Amino acid sequence: MISKKMVGYVNSSSVIRAMFEEGKRLASIYGPENVFDFSLGNPNVPAPDEVNEAFATVIAEEKSTYLHGYMSNSGYEEVREAIANSINSKFGTNFGVKNIVMTVGAAGGLNVILKTLIDPEDEVIAIAPFFGEYRSYVSNYDGKLVVVSPDTSSFQPNLKELEEKITPKTKAVIVNTPNNPTGVIYSEETIIKLAEILNKKQAEFGTDIYLISDEPYRELVYDGFEVPYITKYYANTVVGYSYSKSLSLPGERIGYLVIPSEVADFEDVIAAASVATRILGFVNAPSILQKVVAKCLDAEVNVAAYDKNRKALYNGLKELGFECILPQGAFYLFVKSPIEDEKEFCNIAKKHNILMVPGSTFACPGYVRIAYCVAYETIINSMPKFKELAKEIGLQ
Amino acid sequence: MISKKMVGYVNSSSVIRAMFEEGKRLASIYGPENVFDFSLGNPNVPAPDEVNEAFATVIAEEKSTYLHGYMSNSGYEEVREAIANSINSKFGTNFGVKNIVMTVGAAGGLNVILKTLIDPEDEVIAIAPFFGEYRSYVSNYDGKLVVVSPDTSSFQPNLKELEEKITPKTKAVIVNTPNNPTGVIYSEETIIKLAEILNKKQAEFGTDIYLISDEPYRELVYDGFEVPYITKYYANTVVGYSYSKSLSLPGERIGYLVIPSEVADFEDVIAAASVATRILGFVNAPSILQKVVAKCLDAEVNVAAYDKNRKALYNGLKELGFECILPQGAFYLFVKSPIEDEKEFCNIAKKHNILMVPGSTFACPGYVRIAYCVAYETIINSMPKFKELAKEIGLQ
Repeated sequence: MISKKMVGYVNSSSVIRAMFEEGKRLASIYGPENVFDFSLGNPNVPAPDEVNEAFATVIAEEKSTYLHGYMSNSGYEEVREAIANSINSKFGTNFGVKNIVMTVGAAGGLNVILKTLIDPEDEVIAIAPFFGEYRSYVSNYDGKLVVVSPDTSSFQPNLKELEEKITPKTKAVIVNTPNNPTGVIYSEETIIKLAEILNKKQAEFGTDIYLISDEPYRELVYDGFEVPYITKYYANTVVGYSYSKSLSLPGERIGYLVIPSEVADFEDVIAAASVATRILGFVNAPSILQKVVAKCLDAEVNVAAYDKNRKALYNGLKELGFECILPQGAFYLFVKSPIEDEKEFCNIAKKHNILMVPGSTFACPGYVRIAYCVAYETIINSMPKFKELAKEIGLQ
Repeated sequence: MISKKMVGYVNSSSVIRAMFEEGKRLASIYGPENVFDFSLGNPNVPAPDEVNEAFATVIAEEKSTYLHGYMSNSGYEEVREAIANSINSKFGTNFGVKNIVMTVGAAGGLNVILKTLIDPEDEVIAIAPFFGEYRSYVSNYDGKLVVVSPDTSSFQPNLKELEEKITPKTKAVIVNTPNNPTGVIYSEETIIKLAEILNKKQAEFGTDIYLISDEPYRELVYDGFEVPYITKYYANTVVGYSYSKSLSLPGERIGYLVIPSEVADFEDVIAAASVATRILGFVNAPSILQKVVAKCLDAEVNVAAYDKNRKALYNGLKELGFECILPQGAFYLFVKSPIEDEKEFCNIAKKHNILMVPGSTFACPGYVRIAYCVAYETIINSMPKFKELAKEIGLQ
C-alpha cells in the first residue's frame, strides 16, 4: 500500500502532466503535426548556442573529479559569485556568494525554502491564478495553502483580500511575475503596495512574513515591460529562479535561490536552506549544469519567436471571438472559457485535437491556459481547428 | 524563524559535510597536500572517457529542445528501456521501461520511494552501521527509523534482532550492500535468510514489507566478490541505484529506481513514484545526464585504483596497530577506535590534519570511517601522520 497522502496526490495528479501524456498518445495516433498540444510549458525555442558551447568548454577546462564531483550543498562558490555579480549588475543589488543557493530548478528551490520555513499548520498565501504545483509543495511540509481569489479584470493581485487573509500564522506569500498562467507582470505600484501591507502586518502581529518570488519567466517579457526586482521593495524577500525558460533548459533542473542578508534570521535561513537541499535528496544542483549556466549569464533565448507566437495566437483567437488579455511576459495565454464549465470546454477542444489546461488547475475556473511555447506553425495550423471549436461552441 | 524541525536538522547537521567544509578550511591554511581529508565519499578516480565523449555525442545527435526539454517525470522512455535491458543482461532479470524511474541520484530515489510508501508513524528499519542520511530521509515523511544494532564481529546484519524489530507498522527495511561505511557485501546466504524473515513476517501480520536496496556501490567490488541482485530473492524489493560512484559523477545527481512488477500494489507504487518525483521538486532527473548514462552502461571507473588504495591503507593501518576488517567493496575502511569515545579520537586525528568520520554518525559508535576514494599519494603521505596519531594514542 502506498501512503495515504500519496493516494490523494495520485488521484488529483497534475492535469498539466496528464495532458502532456495525452498529447503524446494522440500524436502517436494522428501524427504529431495534427495534434495541437498547448498543455505544457516545454519551450520549443532551442537553448542559445552558448549553452552547448559551454558544455564543451567546461569539459575541456575542468578536471573530471571537480566538474562531476561533490561541492558544497549550496553549489560551487565561483558559480554563486558569478551569479550574484550578474544580478547585482542588472538590478543594482548587493548580493554575494553567501546569498545564493544553487537549486534543482525553481521547483527544487521552492521546496527547499518551504522546507526551511514551514512548520505544520503554518499558512502560505498564493494569489490566484497561480501555478497549481504550489499546493503540493506547501502540502509536502504540512503547511496550509491560503488562496487569494483572482481579480479577473486585470489579473493583478487582489491586495485588499490578501491583506484580509494574512493572519499571525502567515509564514509566507508566494508571487509569480511574469505570471503563469496569465502572462501578467505585477506592476511596480502593485509591489510597493504589497510590501506596505506585509510590513504593516509584520508589525501588527510581531511576525516575519517571507515573500517568495517565483521568477522563472523574468527574462521572457514583451513590448519593453520591466519586471521589478522585488528584494529592493521588501526586505523579507526570497527569490526562486530557474534557467528552464530563460535558457530553454527545463529538463536540466538548474536554478537558484537568492536569500538576501536582510531577511529575518538570515544566518539560520541560509544554513537551513543548505541542509534542506541535502536532506530532501537534491544534495546539490547538477554540477556540470552549474558550470554551464555560469558561462551563459548574458545568453538569451529567442524571445522574438515567442513574441511572434503571442501575437499570432492572441490576434487569431480574438478574431474568432475568444476573450483574453494580451500577455506582457511568459508564454501563456489565459483565455476566458466561452462556456461556464471550462473543463467541459477543454474536453470539447480535445475532440479537435487541441490540448489546453483548465483554469481550475490554477485556482481560476472559467478560464483555460494555452502555452504558446510551440512551433509557429503549430499556432498557424491550429487556427482552422480553433475555428471549428469556435463554431461548435457557438462563438461563430 | 525557520521551521522547528529544521532547527533540529541544522543543529545535528551532517558530520560528514561539516568535516568536508573543515577540510577545505584546513587546506586553505596548511595547503591541500598537508591535509588528509578522508571524510567524504567524493571519488578521486575520474569519470571514464566514455562520459565526456557521450556529452559531445548527445549534444551533436539530439535536438536541443528534446535533449534539454521536459520528458515524462519518470524519465526518457528510451533511456529507461536501455537501463532495463542492461540490468536484464547482467542479472537475468526481466524488467522493462515501466519498472524504471530515473532519479536525482540515489538520495533523490530514496526520497521518492519513501514519500511514495510512508505514512506518519510507519516504521522503517535500518541495519547499523548505515548511512546516517537515512534518518533525515525517513523523518522527511514523518516515518520512524528503527535501528538494528551492529554485529561488529562480521558487520553482516544481525538478522535475529531484525526479526524481533519487525512489527505490523514496519513498512520498509533499507539495506545497503556493498555497505557504507564498512565495505562489507551482504552474502547470498544473508539475503536468502533476510527474505525468509520478511516473507514470514508479511504472512504473520498480513502486511507488505518493502525491502529498499540502496546500491550506489554495486560496481565497486574487489577480489571477485559478487553482489546478489536482491529482486531475485524477495519479491517486494525496490532498488535505488546511482551513477555517483560507478561513473564518478556524484555532483551530477543521476540514478534510478527499479520497481519490479512483482512488488505489492505495483501499479499504485509506480504511479505514485512518478508523482512523488514531480511534487518533491525534482520534476525529473537531469535530462542530458539521463542521455549520457544511457550511452555509458558498460563503462567502468578504474576500480583497480581504489583497490590499490584499499590495500595500502588497510596494510598501513594494521601495521600501526589499528584494528579493521578488509573491505570487500565500496571505498571505505571502518576502523575500531583505539579509545572508547571515537569522536574524541577524530578530534585528536584532526590535530594531525587527518579527517575521519565518527562511527556514531552511522549508528555504530566506537568506530571511525575512512573514505579512501582519494589520491594514492594522499594515503602514502598520510602514513607518517597516522604513525604520529598511533603514538599519541598509545598504540605504538
